[in-house]
Amino acid sequence: MTEAEFIAVLRLLPLHVAARGLVDDTALLDASPLVVTTDTLVEGVHFLPTDPAEDVAWKLVATNLSDLAAKGATPEGILLNYPLGGDAWDRAFLVGLAEVLTAFDTRIIGGDTVTLPPSAPRILTVTAFGSDAAAPARSGAREGDALYVTGTIGDAGAGLAIALGADGPSELLAAYRRPQPRLADGRILAPHVYAMMDVSDGLLIDASRMALASGLAVTIDLADVPLSDAYRAFSGDRLAAATAGDDYQLLFAAPEAFVTDATRIGAFSAGSGLTLHDSGKPVLLPSSLGYEHRPRG
Amino acid sequence: MTEAEFIAVLRLLPLHVAARGLVDDTALLDASPLVVTTDTLVEGVHFLPTDPAEDVAWKLVATNLSDLAAKGATPEGILLNYPLGGDAWDRAFLVGLAEVLTAFDTRIIGGDTVTLPPSAPRILTVTAFGSDAAAPARSGAREGDALYVTGTIGDAGAGLAIALGADGPSELLAAYRRPQPRLADGRILAPHVYAMMDVSDGLLIDASRMALASGLAVTIDLADVPLSDAYRAFSGDRLAAATAGDDYQLLFAAPEAFVTDATRIGAFSAGSGLTLHDSGKPVLLPSSLGYEHRPRG
Repeated sequence: MTEAEFIAVLRLLPLHVAARGLVDDTALLDASPLVVTTDTLVEGVHFLPTDPAEDVAWKLVATNLSDLAAKGATPEGILLNYPLGGDAWDRAFLVGLAEVLTAFDTRIIGGDTVTLPPSAPRILTVTAFGSDAAAPARSGAREGDALYVTGTIGDAGAGLAIALGADGPSELLAAYRRPQPRLADGRILAPHVYAMMDVSDGLLIDASRMALASGLAVTIDLADVPLSDAYRAFSGDRLAAATAGDDYQLLFAAPEAFVTDATRIGAFSAGSGLTLHDSGKPVLLPSSLGYEHRPRG
Repeated sequence: MTEAEFIAVLRLLPLHVAARGLVDDTALLDASPLVVTTDTLVEGVHFLPTDPAEDVAWKLVATNLSDLAAKGATPEGILLNYPLGGDAWDRAFLVGLAEVLTAFDTRIIGGDTVTLPPSAPRILTVTAFGSDAAAPARSGAREGDALYVTGTIGDAGAGLAIALGADGPSELLAAYRRPQPRLADGRILAPHVYAMMDVSDGLLIDASRMALASGLAVTIDLADVPLSDAYRAFSGDRLAAATAGDDYQLLFAAPEAFVTDATRIGAFSAGSGLTLHDSGKPVLLPSSLGYEHRPRG
């Protein structure tokens, strides 16, 4: 599609009033305060060249909305930085974009379309804006707080293995390709918890980042990491689940007595670093706690 | 550099209070209303693989600030989506980033770093936020308005030719590599003009976009397009200047009697489309009015 054709379809999607009909170079946002977050997805790094374009659109928006969920924010809308990439892919992407915007009541605020050199991997960026946030930081955990996580962990990691050829159920593949940002949970939790973030790079690495930001040590018991029935049937490997990433669940610190549907998986104490237990017994840390971006040069 | 090393240097640059020290996944912006704009630069498309990383950083931020200038906004800060790309390039990029942030009193609000597959072109995105904007749209030109442009046109186009090997002065090369967003002009003009935008893709194509958005025809006289002495000495080709792009001057519609340092280059009338004159005589439109993104597929 040409830039003009692509933007003509974007205009048919839900537009934020700030977009001014997408006829200008800028948007004018009136809500305040605003939670702002941005994520870039790279073909071959964050998604597979074989992932359907509809699912890439979904994941691109959903991962950003997951960051808003961790602040208890209500989505206002998104900016989309999009590389035009061939008619069929562009059209399928727009279908997935319409689906994810509708699913989470989110609107287009603006963006930029570019052309890539031939054979370059697709690199897509979304910036998301949210309002009405309690916005707990990741640095607010206190000594003695318990560590909780919503939902189940490891489904998306299993889904990635299935996308790469392993045998497994479609619900695990969907967890990888169509993550569900926990917006409702985030709005309920945010005013009451001391620290919160989403699990994107892996439960262990993200928990250790919360501990580092809060100036504390954290202990996690692998036996307490919540697994889905589908994941138990697929492999049930708890360490793989806790380091796989792409879960987009909410990880938060709150008092031991906190009443929540989320699962208590550990606790914060004075000190630093991550200690791993399995049913109460210390176990060695794995060589990788999750996904970290490394330089290519 | 690793992601952690890169972010550690970012923390030494001017940080917006909304960045919360870059220890969180989200920023919390309190100004309202906000002008928001985003631009993506692609290696091999928007900049040359041989362009110094310092200059790429400058251009990436400056092109976004130019969109803020066209709305009369004062820069608040930026989000940076950055592909880690090798120690030397990353460090040089950070030097240029510090320079452009300092030059235009702009701060880091947040961003995302990613790793690219080997040999992928660099793709960089900046999203810029501005406050206190009068925010004239590009669609507000009225029948009978004159069309004005600030500064001179064509210098950056000549600078691109020089970067590609042509002989020419360093000031033209600098116009291409270190564009100067017209922030002060924008703040002065924005409350008084009827339509305004920056010239990024080429004077003729951008003027025709303003006319289209305003539902009007526009006539431009090539003989009135302002050229620098350096450009006259380099080539003096007015049609090349008016279609080259990357000027980052401000293009605006205002009454014929408007008092301004900018140059009157044309006028709006009922109808549609662009008509080109040269010293009052009609001339044929060139086959390309400027830069348009085309699909690769």
